[in-house]
Amino acid sequence: MEPGNVLSGGASVAAVLPAGGSGERLGGATPKQFCALLGRPLISYTVRALERINWISDIVVVVSLENIETMKSIIEKYGHKRITVVEGGMTRHRSIFNGLKIFPESKLSSCPLQKPEVVIIHDAVRPFVEEDILLKVVLAAKEHGAAGAIRPLVSTVVASSADGSLDHSLERSRYRASEMPQAFLFDIIYQAYHQCTDYDLDYGTECLHLALKYCKTNAKLIEGSPDLWKVTYKRDLYAAESVIKDSLSQQVCVTTDMKEDAVQLGFLLQEILKNEVKVHLNVSENMSFSNGMEELAWIKEFAREVKKKNILVYGLLIHYNKDDPKLQETINSAAAIISALIKDRNPELIGQLLVA
Amino acid sequence: MEPGNVLSGGASVAAVLPAGGSGERLGGATPKQFCALLGRPLISYTVRALERINWISDIVVVVSLENIETMKSIIEKYGHKRITVVEGGMTRHRSIFNGLKIFPESKLSSCPLQKPEVVIIHDAVRPFVEEDILLKVVLAAKEHGAAGAIRPLVSTVVASSADGSLDHSLERSRYRASEMPQAFLFDIIYQAYHQCTDYDLDYGTECLHLALKYCKTNAKLIEGSPDLWKVTYKRDLYAAESVIKDSLSQQVCVTTDMKEDAVQLGFLLQEILKNEVKVHLNVSENMSFSNGMEELAWIKEFAREVKKKNILVYGLLIHYNKDDPKLQETINSAAAIISALIKDRNPELIGQLLVA
Repeated sequence: MEPGNVLSGGASVAAVLPAGGSGERLGGATPKQFCALLGRPLISYTVRALERINWISDIVVVVSLENIETMKSIIEKYGHKRITVVEGGMTRHRSIFNGLKIFPESKLSSCPLQKPEVVIIHDAVRPFVEEDILLKVVLAAKEHGAAGAIRPLVSTVVASSADGSLDHSLERSRYRASEMPQAFLFDIIYQAYHQCTDYDLDYGTECLHLALKYCKTNAKLIEGSPDLWKVTYKRDLYAAESVIKDSLSQQVCVTTDMKEDAVQLGFLLQEILKNEVKVHLNVSENMSFSNGMEELAWIKEFAREVKKKNILVYGLLIHYNKDDPKLQETINSAAAIISALIKDRNPELIGQLLVA
Repeated sequence: MEPGNVLSGGASVAAVLPAGGSGERLGGATPKQFCALLGRPLISYTVRALERINWISDIVVVVSLENIETMKSIIEKYGHKRITVVEGGMTRHRSIFNGLKIFPESKLSSCPLQKPEVVIIHDAVRPFVEEDILLKVVLAAKEHGAAGAIRPLVSTVVASSADGSLDHSLERSRYRASEMPQAFLFDIIYQAYHQCTDYDLDYGTECLHLALKYCKTNAKLIEGSPDLWKVTYKRDLYAAESVIKDSLSQQVCVTTDMKEDAVQLGFLLQEILKNEVKVHLNVSENMSFSNGMEELAWIKEFAREVKKKNILVYGLLIHYNKDDPKLQETINSAAAIISALIKDRNPELIGQLLVA
């Protein structure tokens, strides 16, 4: 399916990203959408997930007043494009409504934003959203007026009576967890927000519910992947960081200089590391540990310099003799160290000279 | 609250741990309860969480036939006590029922297990359960017949109509997620399982529901902590490993030999690392990089030897001169490297000589 074609019939799409939450459940001072994963704020990953999709014309990020400057500096630092920052309200619904209100009702407006046909609503704390599910909810919203991603329930849902005892439990297979992204015909969700009560705005959380209640629109429910999960607790930050490390590990190749020994060593390493990593090799004829001090000082300085560009450099000394019976063992050890350094991406160990 | 006192009125407590699941949701070949976290199977952490509580007399672990030997070897390897391994059934409920049936109905039986007054049911894939919540569900079960831990819902729950559209959404605040542990008067849950239908046994998942339906017992619902979460997806394994690393990091101190320099260096490191870590320091007068090769070979060999006892050894060379103006910088760097090594616990880097 070619998204550009599917949506070329004039359907303009924008996205609203409510990010006004205070992260109470996380138990930390920093709202979770601004917590750093490998040094980069969570929300920047989510924004990137949306901005890389060329059929989303505008992304409106809704943050609380005190975080507007933080958000603007994130946009500048990571070069995010097509973003508009809007001040949030006291609740999630009020923040989303603020995000929608930024689009002009008339096409004659001088506002640089154009009212989209379809609007995606997504959470800032769901950074792993894929184009596939976004396209599905958008197409379904065009057809049905509203659509949302769902997932199976992980736990049984129970209702308690006034005294805190079990009243009844729901049959798990008949219910689903409502997740994000969701998408709506702009006019439908905008109208729903205009008509809804203060109670809805203050205590509700579910946009699909508003579309049903005020516009009689039964949203299409679309089964999403586990990647849609919401970063809610501290453990989710750990998980998200590991998932990001995993994906990054696949983007890193063995390059060597032209010397025969380096090429052969590179080949052996490549055999073990498969296509997972890229490593630069060069061969020093008379390298020994006695000149290690100078070598190390050079690596440390170089590593410190390139770290500014977010490149982590580690040194690895491989005692290489192609006739050594222990060669394979050495290669294995080198590959294991390389894999570990790449996976852990530990800034504290940069510039170190390790030995295989 | 002193658990021993609370439960000394004759309430005997046992636990049943269903661990027969195939881990489909995890997408891996190994059922999640047997996945290794820092080299140790997940289920071993959960068993340890229960066996350290002295008022739980017996722990029955229910595993599928093909995993019985695996489970027995885990029990032997990690020295778990008071464990009985029972073969599971085709479904969760059938496995729990098998676990309950192992307790003799009569006290005259020659079986080493005694029928408990209260039985805890807990999931093998919830390794972070605390004594506090276990005690709460047990006491509530004594009083009410049944009790279970609950958590707020993370997502809105929706019901779909036959065509896959939204039928209605539940008001999130009125419902809770039913989690584990749960506890029951043994006779109640045993009777519920005896009376329930094959349909219940094959398609149900909720023990509290059986107690309500067949024994008219309205379970007490008790708000649990976020730690009760269930390891369900691959990301949960990442999260669990990080949580374990975090807790382990707090159990590690600076010890030094008696030389004045080492004591001072140790003091400086301790200042930075606070009580978080223990590090052994010794001072070599004339250590230089030129004898690094021998030192390194020794560290590597020693590290390989003690790794068998699950002790990870890394070397760290600190260029120490108490009059050096850059001393504090060196100490900071050493502390950062030590913290990183302890946190990451990376076996691939053991025996390496790092330089601060």
